[in-house]
Amino acid sequence: MSITLYYSPGSCSLAPHIVLNEIGKPFELRKFATANRENYSTEYLDVNPKGRIPALVMDGFTITENPAILAFLGRQFPEANLYPVATPQSEARCLELLAWSSNTAHVAFAQLFRPERFVLDEVDHGPVKESGQLNFKQCLAEIEAELTHQNYAVGDRFSVVDPFWLVFYRWGRLAGYEMRVEYPFYTTFAERLCARESVQRALDTEDISVFD
Amino acid sequence: MSITLYYSPGSCSLAPHIVLNEIGKPFELRKFATANRENYSTEYLDVNPKGRIPALVMDGFTITENPAILAFLGRQFPEANLYPVATPQSEARCLELLAWSSNTAHVAFAQLFRPERFVLDEVDHGPVKESGQLNFKQCLAEIEAELTHQNYAVGDRFSVVDPFWLVFYRWGRLAGYEMRVEYPFYTTFAERLCARESVQRALDTEDISVFD
Repeated sequence: MSITLYYSPGSCSLAPHIVLNEIGKPFELRKFATANRENYSTEYLDVNPKGRIPALVMDGFTITENPAILAFLGRQFPEANLYPVATPQSEARCLELLAWSSNTAHVAFAQLFRPERFVLDEVDHGPVKESGQLNFKQCLAEIEAELTHQNYAVGDRFSVVDPFWLVFYRWGRLAGYEMRVEYPFYTTFAERLCARESVQRALDTEDISVFD
Repeated sequence: MSITLYYSPGSCSLAPHIVLNEIGKPFELRKFATANRENYSTEYLDVNPKGRIPALVMDGFTITENPAILAFLGRQFPEANLYPVATPQSEARCLELLAWSSNTAHVAFAQLFRPERFVLDEVDHGPVKESGQLNFKQCLAEIEAELTHQNYAVGDRFSVVDPFWLVFYRWGRLAGYEMRVEYPFYTTFAERLCARESVQRALDTEDISVFD
């Protein structure tokens, strides 16, 4: 079996990177740093014409979009117990949180750090970022609320959703928020995740950190 | 079994509405028109605190987010053949297209018709809409490109993705685009879908149309 993950350090590709570490099968990492727009290089566009990170190639099959990659990995490696298929309801909840993470939380952060996706002229970035602050904080608050009564995104077990939420925690720090003060349960969750070897190794490999 | 779909006419809830018609089990429709902000009524917030349409309640289990609802319905009713689980790859492709439809195409349209999600002040709506025009047209062009070489979103069979794409086709008309001229393959696809009794009945019930 051959597995390749196309990633950019600290982007949402950190989530499948952690998941691959959890799974424990050999995989190759290919770095295309979005900071240098390497994701729009001819080489990467050959893999994913949309130019978005991440992409996963498994035995010649290319899959993009983080929710699909995470569900696919979780389903392909049931022995890793990362995808809650115990009941149709648990799976649906997992897909619901993946969808929300991608279409709401990630989009809100994009307003902050990729305002050019929402307005053409740089002079208009300010209002998009301002609204993004509110939207992204609202998302972090919703995650905080979830984590006041459970240890992980989907109930009481680590799943493919959790590393996605760790990405947002780290992005909150990048946005300059007082994460420990404003989101204490989310902070405990982030510490819990960072205690996993899979997470620490992914952070080391990408040369990034979650906490100051 | 009890099934209730919370919808707003012409919103992306049209997709699960069509899917429920395809499945053919009895279900109840509850209308909360986003045009009148009924989705922010206390009654609806009790169902979905996020206030977003659609929500599905099946035997007391509430699920939100269109990609999750569509995958859940497809998986729960395998006899309807709406969710491609023949191989892990076909399922992953379906989830990929659902994710993209939700986090990219729907978001682009929201720039046009819900600019208040991206900027706080109405005076800044113009630039968001202008960028939304480009982004949404890019999405329609990507769908058109897919449909030049296949009849449905996931290969050659109707799946839960197709009614989602029909929603975008209709929205393209609402945005004032010359759909027949600019997207001929997409138009043929929309006509193919509208020939289905499930689609026609959903359009009649919601009192909307796809074509002029």
